[in-house]
Amino acid sequence: MNVLVVGSVALDTVETPHGRQVETLGGSASYFAVSCSHFNPVRLVGVVGEDFPDSCRQQLEREGIDLAGLQVSRGKTFRWGGAYRHDMNEAVTDFTHLNVFEEFHPLLPEAYRDSDCVFLANIDPELQLEVLEQVKRPRLVAGDTMNLWLELKPDLVREVASRLDIFILNDAEARMLSGEANLVRAAESILSLGTGCVVIKKGEHGALLLAPEDRFALPGLLLERVVDPTGAGDSFAGGFLGYLAAEGNFSSPALRKAVVYGSVMASFNVESFSLKRLREITPGDIRARFESFKKLTVF
Amino acid sequence: MNVLVVGSVALDTVETPHGRQVETLGGSASYFAVSCSHFNPVRLVGVVGEDFPDSCRQQLEREGIDLAGLQVSRGKTFRWGGAYRHDMNEAVTDFTHLNVFEEFHPLLPEAYRDSDCVFLANIDPELQLEVLEQVKRPRLVAGDTMNLWLELKPDLVREVASRLDIFILNDAEARMLSGEANLVRAAESILSLGTGCVVIKKGEHGALLLAPEDRFALPGLLLERVVDPTGAGDSFAGGFLGYLAAEGNFSSPALRKAVVYGSVMASFNVESFSLKRLREITPGDIRARFESFKKLTVF
Repeated sequence: MNVLVVGSVALDTVETPHGRQVETLGGSASYFAVSCSHFNPVRLVGVVGEDFPDSCRQQLEREGIDLAGLQVSRGKTFRWGGAYRHDMNEAVTDFTHLNVFEEFHPLLPEAYRDSDCVFLANIDPELQLEVLEQVKRPRLVAGDTMNLWLELKPDLVREVASRLDIFILNDAEARMLSGEANLVRAAESILSLGTGCVVIKKGEHGALLLAPEDRFALPGLLLERVVDPTGAGDSFAGGFLGYLAAEGNFSSPALRKAVVYGSVMASFNVESFSLKRLREITPGDIRARFESFKKLTVF
Repeated sequence: MNVLVVGSVALDTVETPHGRQVETLGGSASYFAVSCSHFNPVRLVGVVGEDFPDSCRQQLEREGIDLAGLQVSRGKTFRWGGAYRHDMNEAVTDFTHLNVFEEFHPLLPEAYRDSDCVFLANIDPELQLEVLEQVKRPRLVAGDTMNLWLELKPDLVREVASRLDIFILNDAEARMLSGEANLVRAAESILSLGTGCVVIKKGEHGALLLAPEDRFALPGLLLERVVDPTGAGDSFAGGFLGYLAAEGNFSSPALRKAVVYGSVMASFNVESFSLKRLREITPGDIRARFESFKKLTVF
């Protein structure tokens, strides 16, 4: 199956206790695509400015990511700056320069319209709905969101939710969208919007999968060294959807394994700045870490 | 194997969003003993005042708990009052009247000195050390502590830790004792004190087992209704040690299963006020919930 991701491509300036990196490749679509590419081919729709470095484009091309849908607009590429200080779970944003992203509307190349799996990364829910108008009959649609859209456009987020097979969001977002503090009740409230299945990412505490017929919980891997958490959520989604697309079935056992592969990819991602670690890992590394999760959790 | 617990027996007044209960049976030794008694016989050392209700004593006796070590002192029984408001993970203490507990020194009946498994519930580390002076050659010593002792007597807590086979504590306590924010590094720091194995309780996020040769993580059960969290940690310890004592072996697979049984008992405990739910569950209930954990976590 082929996978389409629509999201941001950015230049990130990030500071963590392990150092500072200036204008490295980032953005939700980049993290998703590189993570997903380890399992399945990916097509990317997004926008960059004329200043987007060739070296960044090559980082994506070398992973075999189809960039026919990456628009180049007049102006500057989206830039984000942030820092992780005491709490490695939450970034403090220093600046957000939307630049060309401000006027972005996703335009799918004709060949992308028949994509089997679609991931609506964290962008304005209006744009997420525009994507859904352009795809023909995807077999699986998954999406993400963020607190900004839950504050500004909660009704549109709910409309998107009603059209998602899988809503992948973090615990704070699930609580915010549902108004429920308890995560099971939060997930049930989201399911009642029409979402097929909810995946809740809990950072170091792991992830939950809540479907009408199944509930699965995976603890976090016990990581001693987190270099940079940026992109962990999108790396999770990339591994999750990449595995499902490669398997070609969306049964409960496949969804459970997809949560594990998502966690595997997120755990690699946080080991380096930007996409460095995600780009260097091998199929053997991925298999070994999947086995680490098994060893950690079996009883 | 026989199990000895030394800890508090109290009358609790607790308020949660589900109601208020006045002067019901509580205390670390009570919760531990009733939980443990589902797996293995328990001997209890503690103190109550002359006002300790017969009905409370009978609640413990009916579970087959050996109360030969329960001293009755002149004065009033230890009383604690607290409330869980917005955050069901943390109680706000309204009052603590130590009463007879203030002058308590554990005195083991001769027959208790050869106990196989000892649980030093959350009491002054000085008293925990007094217990260790009185037992002969226990095969397994486990213990708990709390923030109060980590503030007042950190060196004594470390001395206790050096003599524990298993230190069962919560995430905040592990961080406080070690000075490490990362839980793996916190556990390693505690292991370096001489503790054989560290179990970290993370409330709704589950539990971790960290030994020199093994690491195990169990997510929390997905509970929608928590009536009263009081005693969850001691119920965990009771299930944990009760299972190990009944099995009679302390191998890695047994320790992993013990974490699950501990979590099973804690999950029952929070379903009612005081010891109500823990006292009414059957072996079938316990088996079924163990299977729920399996179903929730397998992939």
